[in-house]
Amino acid sequence: MRLKLTIAYDGRPFRGWQSQAGGGAVQDHLEAAFSKITGRRIVVHGSGRTDAGVHALGQIAHADADDSITLREWHNALNANLPREIRVLRCVRAAQDFHARFTAIGKTYRYRVATTPFLHPLEVGRAWHVPQTLDLPLLEKCLQKITGTHDFAAFAASRGRPEKSTIRTIHSARLARTAGAITLTFEGDGFLYRMVRLLTGTLIRIAQHRADPKWLDELLSAKHGKTSFAAPADGLYLVKVLYPSAG
Amino acid sequence: MRLKLTIAYDGRPFRGWQSQAGGGAVQDHLEAAFSKITGRRIVVHGSGRTDAGVHALGQIAHADADDSITLREWHNALNANLPREIRVLRCVRAAQDFHARFTAIGKTYRYRVATTPFLHPLEVGRAWHVPQTLDLPLLEKCLQKITGTHDFAAFAASRGRPEKSTIRTIHSARLARTAGAITLTFEGDGFLYRMVRLLTGTLIRIAQHRADPKWLDELLSAKHGKTSFAAPADGLYLVKVLYPSAG
Repeated sequence: MRLKLTIAYDGRPFRGWQSQAGGGAVQDHLEAAFSKITGRRIVVHGSGRTDAGVHALGQIAHADADDSITLREWHNALNANLPREIRVLRCVRAAQDFHARFTAIGKTYRYRVATTPFLHPLEVGRAWHVPQTLDLPLLEKCLQKITGTHDFAAFAASRGRPEKSTIRTIHSARLARTAGAITLTFEGDGFLYRMVRLLTGTLIRIAQHRADPKWLDELLSAKHGKTSFAAPADGLYLVKVLYPSAG
Repeated sequence: MRLKLTIAYDGRPFRGWQSQAGGGAVQDHLEAAFSKITGRRIVVHGSGRTDAGVHALGQIAHADADDSITLREWHNALNANLPREIRVLRCVRAAQDFHARFTAIGKTYRYRVATTPFLHPLEVGRAWHVPQTLDLPLLEKCLQKITGTHDFAAFAASRGRPEKSTIRTIHSARLARTAGAITLTFEGDGFLYRMVRLLTGTLIRIAQHRADPKWLDELLSAKHGKTSFAAPADGLYLVKVLYPSAG
């Protein structure tokens, strides 16, 4: 049967999602857990990569596994064979044609920015520390501006092979304030490599009045170069992967 | 001048609060920071010890420091010379007779228990994982029972020299529920060594129906032995140290 796994991880101890030579990636740990349970190699397909240091609250993966073990047993056995910083939160049976990456119709990412004068010890590795005053009304306006369908080529880092298309739709980009922190939540049909970190880094720079808001229009026109202000991995969370309701 | 420091730390990387042979305790790191700034040995007096792994949101300490450096400069210099997992949140001038330990009139501790089937990766080291069903109304009753003035001898681990008195007053003991977790908040005029962990461990055991609630009465009578059910350090937070309003 095809298993659909909802996975959370603390990004700090791992070399990102994607399997690495020498191991140490989240995918490597999941495949090692399957291997310990079954004695066979089972490939785990994720919805997409996350960089080293990026956290996941609801990464999705699928894998084809034996019917002889129940879902509940799979769930327990996987967690028993994973490091504590990776947990399978849900383990359900998916349709045989479900694919964690190709069936996905969107993703939600959250970026956490700590705004206190000093970074709280319990925020270390979990937020980007930006103690300077931020122009939040301006930040709101920028979030409205990036919402919708745009060519986000200026917000993509290169990763070997180029993307077929750099056009993406951001369904919503929201700002929330809590004591000592703000969070930016991006929901879209897909994100280019490093796009959330480049969007966040650029918007924060504008909200610090260290870059002209008009620059955002230029970047969104995809005709005037690229931004290189990437927010660090620490504050980024993959919150959810969206599938058609049947998925 | 006498500095009053409000300090937060992640308990995991350190060997508790109290200075250790070979270093590695929070106090050692603070004294090393003072030493790096001044070139002299300055003793840092904390409000009390916390065990290795126990976190602090508002530990208080005092130290006598040069007047030639402003409070703001002390604050920045200390944080610049501390590991990221220790932060001085506030640095103010205290009365010359203020003593972090002897002036204190109480403390607030919080204990966090994660109740989800699997411990979320971002709760590792920050909560005690108790996936079994808890009888929360019974837990509430137990919390009421421990509130007030009692001889808590049954809830003290030994630490060399015995306490002069094992009578303490718990002003309030409250239960709060959040998604996937409960927190117990204890405010009292003082706590014996490991008392919060022993109270929490024992109450959770009763709330799991693995111990008789009458046992709590026996323990509070201080005539029938001790409890050894200490909750792990991971879930414990020193929230606040209480001083007379002038302190």
